[in-house]
Formats: sequence, C-alpha cells, structure tokens
Amino acid sequence: MQVSLSEAQQAIAAAISEAERIGTRMCIAILDSGANLKAFVRMEDAHLGCIDVATKKAKSACLFGMPSGEIGKLSQPSGPLFGIEHSNAGLITFPGGLPIVNRDGELIGAIGVSGSTVDNDLRVATVGAMAIGSTEVPEHPWRS
Amino acid sequence: MQVSLSEAQQAIAAAISEAERIGTRMCIAILDSGANLKAFVRMEDAHLGCIDVATKKAKSACLFGMPSGEIGKLSQPSGPLFGIEHSNAGLITFPGGLPIVNRDGELIGAIGVSGSTVDNDLRVATVGAMAIGSTEVPEHPWRS
Amino acid sequence: MQVSLSEAQQAIAAAISEAERIGTRMCIAILDSGANLKAFVRMEDAHLGCIDVATKKAKSACLFGMPSGEIGKLSQPSGPLFGIEHSNAGLITFPGGLPIVNRDGELIGAIGVSGSTVDNDLRVATVGAMAIGSTEVPEHPWRS
Amino acid sequence: MQVSLSEAQQAIAAAISEAERIGTRMCIAILDSGANLKAFVRMEDAHLGCIDVATKKAKSACLFGMPSGEIGKLSQPSGPLFGIEHSNAGLITFPGGLPIVNRDGELIGAIGVSGSTVDNDLRVATVGAMAIGSTEVPEHPWRS
Repeated sequence: MQVSLSEAQQAIAAAISEAERIGTRMCIAILDSGANLKAFVRMEDAHLGCIDVATKKAKSACLFGMPSGEIGKLSQPSGPLFGIEHSNAGLITFPGGLPIVNRDGELIGAIGVSGSTVDNDLRVATVGAMAIGSTEVPEHPWRS
Repeated sequence: MQVSLSEAQQAIAAAISEAERIGTRMCIAILDSGANLKAFVRMEDAHLGCIDVATKKAKSACLFGMPSGEIGKLSQPSGPLFGIEHSNAGLITFPGGLPIVNRDGELIGAIGVSGSTVDNDLRVATVGAMAIGSTEVPEHPWRS
Repeated sequence: MQVSLSEAQQAIAAAISEAERIGTRMCIAILDSGANLKAFVRMEDAHLGCIDVATKKAKSACLFGMPSGEIGKLSQPSGPLFGIEHSNAGLITFPGGLPIVNRDGELIGAIGVSGSTVDNDLRVATVGAMAIGSTEVPEHPWRS
Repeated sequence: MQVSLSEAQQAIAAAISEAERIGTRMCIAILDSGANLKAFVRMEDAHLGCIDVATKKAKSACLFGMPSGEIGKLSQPSGPLFGIEHSNAGLITFPGGLPIVNRDGELIGAIGVSGSTVDNDLRVATVGAMAIGSTEVPEHPWRS
C-alpha cells in the first residue's frame, strides 16, 4: 500500500496550513513506502537548503520506519548508530521526518518538513501525516 | 523573478489535466530559475525512474535556457555538444523539459515531464508551462 | 537580486587585501543567492583542500541565510541540527561563510573564505562581504 | 610550475574582453596543472549550466594535456576513447578547454570557457590562454 497522490496532496495542504498558522516557511516532501518522491512543495521564501533537508528527513523516516529524530537519538557520538547518516546517500536524523501509517497499520510513506526550528518542523510534519494516517509504525506487518 | 508556489501549482494542475486527458501517468517537476525544486508530483502508477528523468529535464531546460530536446539535438555523436549530459551532475536532453518565461521576458523557472513517449511528455510540459507563461527565452534580458 | 560580477570582484579584491594584510593565503568563493558560483580565486600557496571548503562555506551560508558558523553551533552532537552537514551534497559549518545582503535587505549571495584559522577566515569573509553589502539577513523579505 | 593568481586574472581579463567584443556571456575557469581551481568568473546572464561545463572543459584539457575538443574527436562512438567522459567524475570533451603552457614548454594549467557556440567558446579560451602562454603541449617534459 502506497500513499496516493490525492493523499499526498492532502497531507501537503494540511502541512502548509499549519506552517502558515504558525508563521513559518517550509519545504514539505512526501515519499511512498519505497522511499521514492511522491510530491513536494517549497513555500515562498523557504530556505533553499531545506529542499534537501526535508527530503532526507522523509527518506530517513521511511527507510527505518521511525521518526527521523528517533534515529538521531541513536546516532549521537558513542550511540549505537553513530554515523548512520553516512548511509543511503545521506540521512538527516533530527526531527521533522515521520513515517505515515494507514488504518491497517501499514507503512504507506513518509513526510519530511524543514524550514524553521526542529520543534516547528516536527509540528508541521505531524499535522501533515495525521491528515491522512498515523505516525506509529506497528511491530508487524509494517510494510505494504 | 522566480516562479511562485501558486504558479507552480497551476502549472502542475494543468499538466495533470492534460496527462489524464491523453491517458498517461506522469512525473512533473517545477524548478525556479536557479534550478532549485519548487514543486513536484508523481501521478499514480508513473514509473519510478521518471522522478529523476522529469527533474533532470527541467534542470537541463533551466540551466541552458532552452528546451531539453534542443540540447539533445546538439549533443548527438559528432554534434557540437556531444556528451554535455556528463555535466551538472547529469542532464537529460530528450524532449519534455521547457523553460518558463514570464510576460516581461524573464526566465522564472522550468518544467520537466516524464512518463510516456517523448511526444506526450513534451505536450504535457507545454500545457503546464503555458498555463503560467511562455516557453520562448528572449535574447536579453533572460534572467531575473 | 543577484550579486553582479563587478560586486563579486570588489568583494574578492577587498578580501584579498585583508588576507595579505594579516599574512594569510586564502581561497575565496562568491555565490549568487541561488547558491551558484559567481567568482572564485585561490591565492598563491593556499591549501588545495580549501577550494572546496571555501565554496561549501559560502553554500552553507547561502542555503540557510545565516553565517556558516551559526549553523555549526546548532549542528554539534546533541544539538538540534546534528548532522545537517550530510545534506545538500555536503555543508561546511564552521566560521568563514557569510550571507551578503544588499541595502534593500535582500539576500544577493554569499562569500566563503578558507585558508587560515577560522577567526582569520571569518575576518576576511566579513571584509569581503562588507565591501558590497551587509551580512545581516532580515526576517523578510530576505530573497530577491 | 603552476599558473599564478596574477596570470589567472590576466587570462580571465583577456577572455572577458574577447567575450564582450563578440557579444557573448561566458563562464571562464582557470585550473592549475594539478587540475585544481585557481580562478573563476561568470559574466552577467551567462547560463548557470555553463559553470560546470567551463570547469569540466578545463579539467579535461588539463588532465590529458590536450584541447578538450581533441579528446572529443577520440571519444565518439567506435572511437578509441569512446566513453572517456565517464572518468574523473565527468569530462566535457567538446571545444572550449585548452591547456596553458609556459615559455619553457611546461604545462602550467588550463582554461575552460562555456556560454556560446563551441566556436565562440574556443575563440575566447584561446585568447585567454594566449594572454599568458601558449596552448601547445610539447612531447616532454610537459608537466612542472
């Protein structure tokens, strides 16, 4: 089960609304569960560097089935996954990337948001993901 | 002058309509005039390989201010630009990428479409670009 | 609004003067606001490794609209942006990269300097940037 | 023997003069004989794609001690060097890149020009190179 274009657009619309509500300018990327880009938007005046950060946050969340920030907790110096950012042509492991799970508990894709503080990025990503599913990946089955 | 998100979304909506009308499934990328991604969508069942092809077509059109297919005419074996595809981290030089020019004659970005035949790709890219501007880059001034 | 070649050359000339005054050998890169290279020089005997460091410092400052060293404060282990260097094909987040802002408060590009201590790099970058603008990115509007 | 910054700047100034004289907008890159960037300029309104093309032309000329266009003659389909563009992180093998040789017959660097037709690119590159040396690489010794 993969995120549909319609769902991706719903998630993006919800994320943009929340970003505007809190006065931020975001890049928002939606990937399917194969970590392939489904939809992307860059709001006016969002930093150019956030295009790649948003996309890599979503990729990180999708590839490992967990919020990007959770990976980051494990990838600190002396942590068990230290340096995992070097894999997969580059990960971003601070908050703002979330898996998207459907009502059957299947991973259907991921959202990545970048453009403000990590707290704001995560807030906007959460609103986007929740518009079309949840962000809790069950133990099994977790992939379509 | 850069393509706005609203313009990018108009161009994508027009391109999707045309793609649906002719029964194709496309990836559609919109870049600003600095060749940075502004918006992207992948229609249902579009080939995954077209994500990068559409984006690189748009990049090629933007970076050289001409349709991607025009570059391709010059880059054939024995042609003057043979092998230009090796530049800029990879170009795609068959049709489907077009510059987008505003009414003041300024390059504001580019569109790239991939997913069907190159004729169909070019048709859909043209409809997308024409929804918000033209595709003819004037001699000067051509950049915002 | 993009940095002109004349402005880029002014900034480089000022930076070279300062570098010579303090007895250092620098690489100096000027990017436009789309993070595309506008001008570059490597002074005699500057380290070869500084070509890329100077360019990536400027890219970092441009892509996120802040001094490269400010990004580095946030990207330390346990910091909110830990590992952001893995984005955008590689960032350099220690001091020496600065945004360049015109008198209308618009980001017109960035300068990156590498070749000596980070204190010296930052000093030379500051002199270069101030020769043609300021380095403070306003809240809005910040991009041409 | 490496190209000095002063020589690089002379070559660039001569190239810019010639580019302006013939009404073109060029990117101009000067590398040292180790194929490392020494100086670069992008004239107003030069295509962004030419930044990398100019640099790779110079790299191609430097790495193989011959004009980029001569490599291109050998790299055509069925030619002895077919596909050499895939080496060295990407070569550009059409005209516009030239080795620069000092009066002692030593390779001191290379120039790459891109922005117009290959004939114009080559003309401007030749003027740039000849301002500080010649473009004929002797059999031996050819490297400093």
